This record gives sequence, structure tokens and C-alpha cells, in this order.
Amino acid sequence: MADRFTLHEDPRSGNCYKIRLTAALLGVPLDLRQYDIMQGQTRTAEFLGTVNANGRIPVLQIGEGATARFLPESNAACWYLAEGSPLIPADRFGRADMLRWMFFEQYNHEPNIATLRFWLRFVGEAKLTDAQRAQMMPKRIAGCDALKVMDEHLARQHWFVGAGATLADVALYAYTHKAEEGGFGLADYPAIGAWLQRVAALPGFVTMD
Amino acid sequence: MADRFTLHEDPRSGNCYKIRLTAALLGVPLDLRQYDIMQGQTRTAEFLGTVNANGRIPVLQIGEGATARFLPESNAACWYLAEGSPLIPADRFGRADMLRWMFFEQYNHEPNIATLRFWLRFVGEAKLTDAQRAQMMPKRIAGCDALKVMDEHLARQHWFVGAGATLADVALYAYTHKAEEGGFGLADYPAIGAWLQRVAALPGFVTMD
Repeated sequence: MADRFTLHEDPRSGNCYKIRLTAALLGVPLDLRQYDIMQGQTRTAEFLGTVNANGRIPVLQIGEGATARFLPESNAACWYLAEGSPLIPADRFGRADMLRWMFFEQYNHEPNIATLRFWLRFVGEAKLTDAQRAQMMPKRIAGCDALKVMDEHLARQHWFVGAGATLADVALYAYTHKAEEGGFGLADYPAIGAWLQRVAALPGFVTMD
Repeated sequence: MADRFTLHEDPRSGNCYKIRLTAALLGVPLDLRQYDIMQGQTRTAEFLGTVNANGRIPVLQIGEGATARFLPESNAACWYLAEGSPLIPADRFGRADMLRWMFFEQYNHEPNIATLRFWLRFVGEAKLTDAQRAQMMPKRIAGCDALKVMDEHLARQHWFVGAGATLADVALYAYTHKAEEGGFGLADYPAIGAWLQRVAALPGFVTMD
């Protein structure tokens, strides 16, 4: 019998959505267990001891009970689900190049674009700390740089790697399509706009909300 | 004939060292082309147009001349070099779990531990901007959190994933073993100390300097 998958998630998180979208594109069922990160529900002793010592979601749970295994980090969970499917390129360079865009997403994209969305949409600008406020402009600039790199790449090809959608597209779609909630104007990036439509037209696609 | 590998790098960068260490552990020769990031040598039109539009090193160049391919992102380059070797686990969960630690490294570890090392060792505290200064304490706390997660994990097992060294160990070794240059005291993390010695004893190991 195949393993049962449980996603420990907050539905507002784009990192969690990546995993839901990957599962939907693959036709793999996911049980959902929801937490409110604003209420500290991923910092309880039970969560830290069982699900993720790092206190973060998403975590993909594989199996149940005493033999359950837990996989934190959204992009690693997507990789686990997609192994052997067309969402991971079949050639060696393609696989590494896909990972390249997934590391770019976690390093250059998410800390800027997702963080500004979180601060502006969910925390509220009036409640930011001085240290957060000092980071707004550097994150704005770095987020625009990341979008520019994506737009220039997508002006030359329809998908990030090769001739079809891969996990690189899934990973970058999650926060890019919500970037305006973080104050980024997507009208400046026409190739990104066309790519967002291509992703949303994939068979099995599900929305974030 | 096998592809020739050229690493575009700054030797002070731990991200570049990861790739050199992976190649050394695998016995794969690497040609080195060095840049000084402090002098903007990765922001020239030639570099941006040919090697990496993101203006960052390391970049692994695979092949030469008109058919050369370029792979940015240190962990993706390590993956490319190590495919099919024992540095990547043979089982599906192990591979994803290794990637989990590599994404942790780029998201929770490097932006804190490597950035403080860069600021304190190479830029100099007196030359930091106000925005950087406001980030010092948040990065100090987040870096200590990352080291704590690593230390607790390594108190239970010798390597990050499975029974031997993988790319997760290589990726996390690079900036952890230089963390004291960023003001982090490693004496607080005894399991990390023992693991650093295990990594340094691996056959083929090379130092950063």
C-alpha cells in the first residue's frame, strides 16, 4: 500500500501551497493539518518534538503512527513527491538546473518577496519593528532584482528549465503570483505575466486560496 | 571524453568552497577562475551576459567554448557533480532529506552565519550601513537558532542524513567551520565540533584556504 501523505501547513503560506500544487499536478492525495503561525501553533513542545525541531511549516509527513517520517523545507517536500514524474527533468543538467532555480527561489526570491507580503498583508506596516522597517527598502530592491532575473529568463523560454513545467516553475509561482500583496508591481515584468498564465493553465492546477 | 569543469569563484566564499570540497571528495578535477567580489568583478557586462545574469558566484561551467553550460547556485553545482556517487543517498527519502538540509543551509544558515562573517571579516563593522547594522542582532539570533538545530540533530547521529557523509554535510560544513569569523562561538555546540572533525577526516578532504 502506498504511503499516506499529510501536509502540516498554514494555508496563507506560499511555501505550503507549493506542496499542494505539486501534489495536485501529480494527482497525489494529501491530508491537510492546519496551523496558525501567527498564534505560535508551530512553536509548541509537541510540534517541535514531533514534526519539526526548527518550528517551521510546511512539513510533509510520510506515513502514519510510529513509522511516520517528517520532511521539512517546501522544496525538499516537492522533490520527494515528484521523483520519477515529468516535474523533474530526466537529464542530469536539467535536474541540477531545476535545483538551481529552486535554490534561487529560497535565497533571492522568498526572503524578499514573501517576507514583504507577510509584513504588509498579515503583520501590518504599523506593527513592524525598527529592524524590520530598516529592511523594507533592501528587500524591495532585492525582490525587484529577482523578478528582473526571472523576467529576462522567461523572455527567452516558456518554462524555467527545458520544454515543460518542472518544480522550478511550481516553486517560483507560489510567491510570484502573490507578489502584488507585497507591493511589487507585476506589470513591469511582462514575461512573468505570460508565464503565470501558463502555470495556471496546467492540467490539475489548483489555486492557493 | 568527459566534460571539463571550470569553477568561477572567489576563494574567500564558503559557497565556492562547497563545490571545491565536493569535487575533491569525488576526485573530480576542477579548473578555477577567480574573481574579487569586493571589486565588482562579477558585475561586469561580460560576466552578466555569459556566466550568470544574477551577478553572483559560484558558477560551475560544464564544458568549454560555444557548447559550455553554466550552473549558478552552489548547492545545485554540488548536486550536478555528485549525481551517481555516495555523496547523494540512494533512497528516495534520503535524497529528499539531504535536499531538506541543503535548503535549510541556504535559508536559515547562510544568510545569517555567512553574512555576519562577510560583514565583520571582510567589510568591517565600521563600514556597515545603518540597514546592515539593524540586521546584526536578528542575524545573530537566527544564526544561533540554526546552529542549535544542527547541534541537536548531530547529537543523535554522526552525519546529517543516513550513515555517511552526503552533500548536506558538505554544504553545512562550509560556513559552519568559519562561523567564529562571524562572531559565533562554536564551543556552545559540542556535537557540531565533533562533526566538523569527522568532515575534516574524510578521504580527499581539502581545506578552504
